[in-house]
Amino acid sequence: MKIDGQPLRPLRALPARDAVEIIDQRALPHALRLARLASVDDVCTAIRDMWLRGAPLIGAAAAYGVALALGRDASDGALHAACERLRGTRPTAVNLAWALARMQRRLHDLAAGARAAAAWAEADAIAEEDVATNHAIGRHGLALVERIAHTPGRRPGPVRVLTHCNAGFLATVDWGTATAPIYLAHEAGIALHVWVDETRPRNQGASLTAWELAHAGVPLTIVADNAGGHLMQRGEVDIVFVGCDRVAANGDVCNKIGTYLKALAAHDNGVPFYVAMPTSTLDLDTARGADIAIEERAAREVTHVAGRDDAGRLREVCLVPAGARAANPAFDVTPARLVSGLVSECGVVPASADALRALARKAAAATEAA
Amino acid sequence: MKIDGQPLRPLRALPARDAVEIIDQRALPHALRLARLASVDDVCTAIRDMWLRGAPLIGAAAAYGVALALGRDASDGALHAACERLRGTRPTAVNLAWALARMQRRLHDLAAGARAAAAWAEADAIAEEDVATNHAIGRHGLALVERIAHTPGRRPGPVRVLTHCNAGFLATVDWGTATAPIYLAHEAGIALHVWVDETRPRNQGASLTAWELAHAGVPLTIVADNAGGHLMQRGEVDIVFVGCDRVAANGDVCNKIGTYLKALAAHDNGVPFYVAMPTSTLDLDTARGADIAIEERAAREVTHVAGRDDAGRLREVCLVPAGARAANPAFDVTPARLVSGLVSECGVVPASADALRALARKAAAATEAA
Repeated sequence: MKIDGQPLRPLRALPARDAVEIIDQRALPHALRLARLASVDDVCTAIRDMWLRGAPLIGAAAAYGVALALGRDASDGALHAACERLRGTRPTAVNLAWALARMQRRLHDLAAGARAAAAWAEADAIAEEDVATNHAIGRHGLALVERIAHTPGRRPGPVRVLTHCNAGFLATVDWGTATAPIYLAHEAGIALHVWVDETRPRNQGASLTAWELAHAGVPLTIVADNAGGHLMQRGEVDIVFVGCDRVAANGDVCNKIGTYLKALAAHDNGVPFYVAMPTSTLDLDTARGADIAIEERAAREVTHVAGRDDAGRLREVCLVPAGARAANPAFDVTPARLVSGLVSECGVVPASADALRALARKAAAATEAA
Repeated sequence: MKIDGQPLRPLRALPARDAVEIIDQRALPHALRLARLASVDDVCTAIRDMWLRGAPLIGAAAAYGVALALGRDASDGALHAACERLRGTRPTAVNLAWALARMQRRLHDLAAGARAAAAWAEADAIAEEDVATNHAIGRHGLALVERIAHTPGRRPGPVRVLTHCNAGFLATVDWGTATAPIYLAHEAGIALHVWVDETRPRNQGASLTAWELAHAGVPLTIVADNAGGHLMQRGEVDIVFVGCDRVAANGDVCNKIGTYLKALAAHDNGVPFYVAMPTSTLDLDTARGADIAIEERAAREVTHVAGRDDAGRLREVCLVPAGARAANPAFDVTPARLVSGLVSECGVVPASADALRALARKAAAATEAA
């Protein structure tokens, strides 16, 4: 998609096949900075230290990380070691494990000499499939937005969407997941307004989602995470779209910390709550959300915050009393009962065990047919 | 109560009756700075710009503001003008209006020459009644904490309290409202651990509640506002205590933005959710929470944040893309159905119209008897 009118992606393989170029998201929203990752070490650092983030983007980046590793050493040991190291960077992200398993499956039985080229091709395929998946999610989500926009007797004005964190263009290879319906609706000429949750502690909403929506021309207002319930109570939200890091077999949704609170508020106020879910994020091996181990991240993400000062310089400040303790669970689980539907590339399905088993079969059949 | 072992209050009248001394809360949690307010102008600035905040403390400060005004000009016009100006500083705070109405009632029929001394005495009475009220709230709330601590077969370890914003020592003349049960339980030797919601956008939890609990010796952990639902889901919270800015006749609770989300999560997980409510915060003239106009504060509170840099200097940084729009509703309404009980100075009562009418009668009778 276009950012400030120009095609741009947060991750692309460079033509020489010796590196990938990414948007270094740590500089956003204050500057658009590109970074060159030329080794599996670089990719591990970029994933672990969140130069890039977002489940689908991490998966694609990890695949390119394998390709970069095999360009130097294509042995079984090197393949195994690269996958192990990449897998360890973000333990909660199921797409990461999924992409690495796919790379290993594709590469394991090849002769060492054929592996590097095959790895680049497979990583490209993962990236392009992500783009196609998100575009399909966007089309299915667009139908939900159109239904609201065309409700007879509806108050005039834009369709008001609330979103949490960044399940956007910047979290994927293109389009985003939760934002794909927004971008396609915007392209289709439907008037929109997006409430962007700040998304503490890392502020992905205020920094990333706000940046990408603004540069794509979509009207938005940033709010503190605390405000969403109030906005729904007062009738200011028509629909919620969020992403997900993992969906359990029963339809429980693991996503950025705070998603559960918005789902409770949506349910309490009759606001439709939709989760954009590439089928690769579905984890039928996890029975229910309560079984998911929640990543605890550094306390410093809570106690310190970075921003730009009046002179435009990036600075980090401490918000809390010296020596204060903080906890930082990075995700929470939204029970399936609070989810209006899961918007997958194969269509919108209920958050139920039966529907998800059927969806997995449909997705597998589509993959085999392709 | 004692801060670092020494008696300290966030507001006290100076013996010469020409000023009041307050803790300038803008410097917290990085420094303990006292400020001298010597005129009604000073008091208006301090309330409006949040040098001090918290419904009960604002009420007492406004009362002293009237006394300071009358020290210069004790005419009817001056009394009226002072009350009008003070009332306009924070339109949502019912205690402010309550304290000013009480001052006007007490002073209006006095000769001008008697007014200043009477105003100081009445302001002192309001302040000391607040201390007594909060201590009584603390005793009633302590019983709830004791019941949890002494539940047979309970897992060992501290009673785990979650609180939002700062309904603490710093929001009152002493003890706090939501914190009074915590401080009295701590004094009684009950092991406690407090989850402190950061409370965006002004971070009153991370800066004020964390500061006062730490300096009173109560163990605490700061969390992003997004984390509370997850903590409750995983069984990490035994009880929630929050304050309130206004309680409607039907028991709906208006409090700091985000309170509603925590109440939803508490209800969803069977965690008791208690609101500390001085009866002065009860507004029987407001039928239900939806009737309360919610104060919209400056967008800059969302887009910018102040903290201390590595050199210990206070700095403000911007978190959002240049030019991004933000909204900042300061309060929300928690429906009565989500409230386990209202902890008043007259006891714990259900959040229902009948109970609140009875409570108001009881409080009025107690005031008359006094």
